[in-house]
Amino acid sequence: MRVIVPFDASDPKTRLAPVLSAQERRAFADAMLSDVLAAIDRAGHDAHVITTAEVDVPTPTTVDTRPLSTALNDALSTVDRPVAIVMADLPLVTSHTVSRLFDAEGDLVIAPGLGGGTNALVIRTPAFHVDYHGASCRKHREIADRLGLSVTECDSRRLATDIDEPADLREVLLHTDGRAARWLQDRDFSIAVSSGRVSADRKLE
Amino acid sequence: MRVIVPFDASDPKTRLAPVLSAQERRAFADAMLSDVLAAIDRAGHDAHVITTAEVDVPTPTTVDTRPLSTALNDALSTVDRPVAIVMADLPLVTSHTVSRLFDAEGDLVIAPGLGGGTNALVIRTPAFHVDYHGASCRKHREIADRLGLSVTECDSRRLATDIDEPADLREVLLHTDGRAARWLQDRDFSIAVSSGRVSADRKLE
Repeated sequence: MRVIVPFDASDPKTRLAPVLSAQERRAFADAMLSDVLAAIDRAGHDAHVITTAEVDVPTPTTVDTRPLSTALNDALSTVDRPVAIVMADLPLVTSHTVSRLFDAEGDLVIAPGLGGGTNALVIRTPAFHVDYHGASCRKHREIADRLGLSVTECDSRRLATDIDEPADLREVLLHTDGRAARWLQDRDFSIAVSSGRVSADRKLE
Repeated sequence: MRVIVPFDASDPKTRLAPVLSAQERRAFADAMLSDVLAAIDRAGHDAHVITTAEVDVPTPTTVDTRPLSTALNDALSTVDRPVAIVMADLPLVTSHTVSRLFDAEGDLVIAPGLGGGTNALVIRTPAFHVDYHGASCRKHREIADRLGLSVTECDSRRLATDIDEPADLREVLLHTDGRAARWLQDRDFSIAVSSGRVSADRKLE
């Protein structure tokens, strides 16, 4: 399946600013993108990155600086169905997760993210368009309902866990050993357990 | 399958104190427990609640005021295998989720929670014991490794989403229509979207 992976290369992951510098955030975003592309590749599918600026990956890329939904709907208009969209900040995703997503039936398969987002879609009909603003998971269901499409939910913690905030970093350290996890470990992030709660803490010099 | 559902009836859900009174937290915890028990029942399995104080549910209950792991290991010692443990604060769980969990193979099936916890287990061997303190997901894997057990991960957002903090409430409103969701709606909680982010806000008089 053709898999579009949108990537924000321009000041990405601003909500990680409390723990990572701007340069570090870009490097960490690159590492997460690499993990997602590796999972798609191992699952036997072809990724295409739509990025806001140049990025160094062994995958076809298109630079598009327009808003996310505009860029994606334009890209969708040029490819055959089925097509998938998988976000770039999902380092917990494995090839098995990708296969589960693509094996789900339905005109539209939605993998909701935590907080109402849409972390992955499989689109099997030409009519559907995306709208990623706000509670996009609901919006995508509404668009599908208006078009009379069958919708399946892909219930995956690994697809639901997008890494946006410092509290999310623990998930990377707990559940993956890819580039993003090693990048964090190399910058002295580790799992800390206090009062029964788990956090990802950075050792300061 | 026999399913043990541990329930904290004594000052539950303290991290929801910023938005709910003590009495409301207990009522909301009861509503979440009802949703979990209904999902287990609809999936055709027998739940047994181990609670720290009396609770009004149409399910066999045992009151046990000891620490969680102690109470559960004692309960495990008296039941046949296979046996499952499903937490009571998972209102996103459906009968389909329960069936997916129980259909997974392996001596031990783990459904990790966000933040390193263990939200559900299926135990198919007498040897295994639980330890819910701290990053219990890792601990349960280590215990299984020491015993030479096969371990399967159940990758489910619905099982991973335990409702502990105000930010978690949006998941209940976005993805369920059970008792817990209706309880929140009746107390004027609703989904709010601002600056592209989603939250569950309470309308104040």
